[in-house]
Amino acid sequence: MNIIEGGVTAAKGFAASSCEANIKYKDRTDMALVFSKEPCVCAGTFTTNVVKAACVKWDQKIVKSGDAMHAVVINSGIANACTGKEGFDACEATAKAVEESLKVPYTSVAVASTGVIGMQLPVDKLVAGVGMMSKTLDESIGAGTDASKAIMTTDTVNKEIAVTFDIDGKNVTLGGMSKGSGMIHPNMCTMLAFLTTDISIEKSLLQEAVSSVVEDSFNMITVDGDTSTNDTLLCMANGLAGNSCIKDKGKDYETFKEALSFVCTFLAKKMASDGEGATKLFEAKVVNVKSKADARTLSRSIVGSNLSKAAIYGCDANFGRFLCAMGYSGADFDQNDVELFFESKNGRLEVFHKGTPLEFDEDKALHIMKADEVTVFVDMHEGNEEATAWGCDLTYDYVKINADYRS
Amino acid sequence: MNIIEGGVTAAKGFAASSCEANIKYKDRTDMALVFSKEPCVCAGTFTTNVVKAACVKWDQKIVKSGDAMHAVVINSGIANACTGKEGFDACEATAKAVEESLKVPYTSVAVASTGVIGMQLPVDKLVAGVGMMSKTLDESIGAGTDASKAIMTTDTVNKEIAVTFDIDGKNVTLGGMSKGSGMIHPNMCTMLAFLTTDISIEKSLLQEAVSSVVEDSFNMITVDGDTSTNDTLLCMANGLAGNSCIKDKGKDYETFKEALSFVCTFLAKKMASDGEGATKLFEAKVVNVKSKADARTLSRSIVGSNLSKAAIYGCDANFGRFLCAMGYSGADFDQNDVELFFESKNGRLEVFHKGTPLEFDEDKALHIMKADEVTVFVDMHEGNEEATAWGCDLTYDYVKINADYRS
Repeated sequence: MNIIEGGVTAAKGFAASSCEANIKYKDRTDMALVFSKEPCVCAGTFTTNVVKAACVKWDQKIVKSGDAMHAVVINSGIANACTGKEGFDACEATAKAVEESLKVPYTSVAVASTGVIGMQLPVDKLVAGVGMMSKTLDESIGAGTDASKAIMTTDTVNKEIAVTFDIDGKNVTLGGMSKGSGMIHPNMCTMLAFLTTDISIEKSLLQEAVSSVVEDSFNMITVDGDTSTNDTLLCMANGLAGNSCIKDKGKDYETFKEALSFVCTFLAKKMASDGEGATKLFEAKVVNVKSKADARTLSRSIVGSNLSKAAIYGCDANFGRFLCAMGYSGADFDQNDVELFFESKNGRLEVFHKGTPLEFDEDKALHIMKADEVTVFVDMHEGNEEATAWGCDLTYDYVKINADYRS
Repeated sequence: MNIIEGGVTAAKGFAASSCEANIKYKDRTDMALVFSKEPCVCAGTFTTNVVKAACVKWDQKIVKSGDAMHAVVINSGIANACTGKEGFDACEATAKAVEESLKVPYTSVAVASTGVIGMQLPVDKLVAGVGMMSKTLDESIGAGTDASKAIMTTDTVNKEIAVTFDIDGKNVTLGGMSKGSGMIHPNMCTMLAFLTTDISIEKSLLQEAVSSVVEDSFNMITVDGDTSTNDTLLCMANGLAGNSCIKDKGKDYETFKEALSFVCTFLAKKMASDGEGATKLFEAKVVNVKSKADARTLSRSIVGSNLSKAAIYGCDANFGRFLCAMGYSGADFDQNDVELFFESKNGRLEVFHKGTPLEFDEDKALHIMKADEVTVFVDMHEGNEEATAWGCDLTYDYVKINADYRS
């Protein structure tokens, strides 16, 4: 597998465009279109929040239908959540505008939104945006990068990646883009992520690979514990790589899944480290756990705790907060089995050993924690499973970003 | 029922004292002793965190044993959690110091600690503190107030209350004190709360009343979603009021439970409004819910969301965040049934009506949200149950307090 330049336009046959539709933001792009003339099989995972955005319901219907997908239209600024029938009508109008411009069925057009909840989308601006974008579709790397910028909200960097790998003697490409960066505590998927690939694969296997990979990538990150109403991951596969279609879980399926896992983990970590207000990537790796479920629960609880996150911001080796977060996570364990370490590029330090706090060098701890990626490594000594979760520190800026009137 | 001055020394036969033991804090009191010469029946509720402080395990044993309780010794500064055998030895040494000074069995002495996790208590200072305090025990109101100050950590105000009520023609008193104010997300109990009463009641009924009342008071508050390792509530009843002992769930039991509920709710709300860095009390009242469990889940999810809390700090009527928090709470509902209002002493405003956002006056919303107690009122229109939860806003100061090195 090789990492290559680009994102959603890296794979053969995918074009993208973006525009300033002035939906809510001014003087920046706020709509993106990803398009494949060749029909795609598609897979998706969506928020488990009971309050689902209109676009999530729209996309779930398409993914479930088994129909081909040709396009996805994304806007930033307004989330189209808690918007009643009017919100659903906006999805339909957007999809129908694509049908008119690009001559593909509107039932093959996914839509996604991110931004403020409880505000109606200006349908005329959406439709005008689709009109502009359908005229500027472009298969260049730059067009994909521009699309990844248009979907940003409070993100400080755009997030994209692409890889190539060989299947059946053919060179296959998989690329993707995603955005965060608040209301991030994905459950079944993350805020917004779009993957494109030219692999040929059966729909059911594509869905199975996506669902499986999401568990250990996007579902293992948290910024603020708030599971969004809009979490959507869509993966489109148009088959243009020319490999013989993957129809079983053999070697080719595993090769694809490995690439998918790399891409999803890369994008997920990017989202965690670019969490609202974040200054650091905060990783928790928990090993030798009784069950996979417990390993996930423990590592997510550590990176999800406000007190842990504030300690990471403060470079404070206050390890009791991490043990406390493990203790209330819901997983059962004996603290007398536990060893806890701090790790970063600056070193490694054990601070708690099987039930007892260790005396440690505070300066060394501070040095380790000052790195921009800090890991809490926990050995449970109770089994053979492990999991890694990613989050970020809790900072003044998180509060500032989310307390409009005061900022 | 009448509210009277005082706290843990309000009821007959209870004395208190406090001292500067220099355990971790300097130039302030950091130990408190509450004592009843008359043996007490006792009840307690404790943290559900798997990682329990040594003192929690010590107290659970006493409460379970059915033996009488005479005293509780509390220290602030160090939590005695994650401290192995040495931590448990510190509990025993403290209790034995009370036995020596006050001639009550050490198995009748509860201990409680609050502060940093993973640090050992200085046993010599604890024992010396007990020596000082046993000589200055005092039944005055002031001694109780001083005790409530000695147990504070990041609390900005001490928390105490007392009430009287009649049982069986006798005047009964119930008083209490508690402390917060970070790592507050009680599960089965709150950080630290101590109640004293001169009522005569059977132990099993006292425990039943306490366990029931805690569900709708202390267990309905959250500051940061972090369930502490030390949560402890103890209630001591010495019988000196002279009522005929309550042995069934008749009128007298209900009268006592009502007073207990008032006292616990008062202390719980005080803790929520004094959460670390808080500028406001944030209340969520959810009515007409399918089940009591769902009502509690929904209201707790609203006040627990970082995004909701930041919106409350920012006086931002961004109601989508509250609906989002309800949506991921785990309770099932149809957003098309929901009505959502903002309320405070400055007015009431509906912002979301049965699935659709309402156009509302932003200035009026800001005026309502600028009050120091703000309520999100939600009518689910799906049943007959309701619940109220309390939290606080998320502010720069919460981060500052919990990110030592940066502050």
